[in-house]
Amino acid sequence: MAETRRLRLALVTGNKHKLREAQEILSPYGIDLYMAGPEKIEIQADSLSKIAMVAARHAWESLGKPLIVDDSGLFIEALNGFPGPYSRYVYDTLGVDGILKLLEGEENRHACFKTAVALVLPPLEMVFEGKTCGTITTRPKGSSGFGFDPIFVPEGCSRTYAEMTVSEKNKVSHRAKAMKTLGSFIKSMF
Amino acid sequence: MAETRRLRLALVTGNKHKLREAQEILSPYGIDLYMAGPEKIEIQADSLSKIAMVAARHAWESLGKPLIVDDSGLFIEALNGFPGPYSRYVYDTLGVDGILKLLEGEENRHACFKTAVALVLPPLEMVFEGKTCGTITTRPKGSSGFGFDPIFVPEGCSRTYAEMTVSEKNKVSHRAKAMKTLGSFIKSMF
Repeated sequence: MAETRRLRLALVTGNKHKLREAQEILSPYGIDLYMAGPEKIEIQADSLSKIAMVAARHAWESLGKPLIVDDSGLFIEALNGFPGPYSRYVYDTLGVDGILKLLEGEENRHACFKTAVALVLPPLEMVFEGKTCGTITTRPKGSSGFGFDPIFVPEGCSRTYAEMTVSEKNKVSHRAKAMKTLGSFIKSMF
Repeated sequence: MAETRRLRLALVTGNKHKLREAQEILSPYGIDLYMAGPEKIEIQADSLSKIAMVAARHAWESLGKPLIVDDSGLFIEALNGFPGPYSRYVYDTLGVDGILKLLEGEENRHACFKTAVALVLPPLEMVFEGKTCGTITTRPKGSSGFGFDPIFVPEGCSRTYAEMTVSEKNKVSHRAKAMKTLGSFIKSMF
């Protein structure tokens, strides 16, 4: 893809960390992101893909420009998938400490971070998914990233997401996997 | 209101307990409920009223008949309002035990149950609210009701919601307060 044919996509979010992570991944695919903030409607559903697509269609109605919406969640096996699609709300209310308290005495620390990225680029509407599994630590470590990053160690790693730089996290993260699939798809289209 | 002028309203829910509680309250106001199950869209928001109204408008689009939607939640002070609007999801994943674990060692057991009932009776669109505060027990008691009823004791009572009959619960409950306000309003209109 020639530099002159770069695609500009709005990322509908108020989260600068998400923007930074996504921009670094998508840039080599010829995609430039900018943050757009129309009111984001999120439905209550078990499926991140459904939440992301409903939000993306809603954002399209007010923005009218090609856009993506990222919806992510941490699914903890011993907690029946909690906090899942409600990870942001749970982070804001219970925080990292609440999750650790719920897992006190629990041997099964397995969890997966998942992302669904919905793309609206009419007439196209698509969702790209990414998943990274790992374990929940017994105490928070690191200060980069956001949300539950300080208590999640991806499989095959010895550090939490919050102990990694953006570039390191982007080599293994759920969001990176979803964004790379999106990037490859877009690159193949142009 | 004469018996011949009773109003039929759909209650959009899959929860028979909600139907039973609401029917008992609304019957004296000349309102007959029936359960209707179009797909219920719930948005993620801090406001029960907003969630209920968006769900009610969406249900109206597919049902096309006068209807109400009840959205309720348990707001626990020491947990910054958690589980709030996501009480159903939290009940399904963490259950009563999860809430009790989060409150272990916590002296502040204050909590409020809240309900918002959205009415769509074109051209009317209104929301009626109800709130009952009380305390979270240290262990579950009783088996009637549903959700977090076994761990909530309303102010001025010595028993949990789950230790009460439907009629007893309807004397003090958040849902009853919202439904009675709705009932009074409808009765005043006809």
